[in-house]
Amino acid sequence: MQARVYVTLKRGVLDPQGKAVALSLSSMGFEEVEDVRLGKFIEVKLADGSSPEKAKERLTEMCQRLLANTVIEDYRIEIVGA
Amino acid sequence: MQARVYVTLKRGVLDPQGKAVALSLSSMGFEEVEDVRLGKFIEVKLADGSSPEKAKERLTEMCQRLLANTVIEDYRIEIVGA
Repeated sequence: MQARVYVTLKRGVLDPQGKAVALSLSSMGFEEVEDVRLGKFIEVKLADGSSPEKAKERLTEMCQRLLANTVIEDYRIEIVGA
Repeated sequence: MQARVYVTLKRGVLDPQGKAVALSLSSMGFEEVEDVRLGKFIEVKLADGSSPEKAKERLTEMCQRLLANTVIEDYRIEIVGA
């Protein structure tokens, strides 16, 4: 089973890396860029055998314990293929 | 206009960070994890006024020149809201 996890900074949390990328893009001539926010995109391959619901439960636990810093980050889980 | 860019390592390119995360998850008791691949998830806010096609063209150029290392990375562009 394949799953995808999107980890992004919470609204209101400053994103200096995103700001740096936005500045670089503008200086390269991409003036239409107003804002950039960077996040993590994690593809997780799980052993077959568990239900999508169970997999989502376990992935939530993985996010809570390792993949996301839940103080400043949000996460979203997508089960791609059973 | 809001766009999202997904930057991932090309198939066949080793992902030591992904391997490290997979090992950590297994050692935390998540034995069902077979593989983990890490990528970048970039949210770009563009000034209104251009068409989605034009925006996609410009975002492709941004990926080619800055957001992705096209030697080892693939990128995928999603225009979210006009």
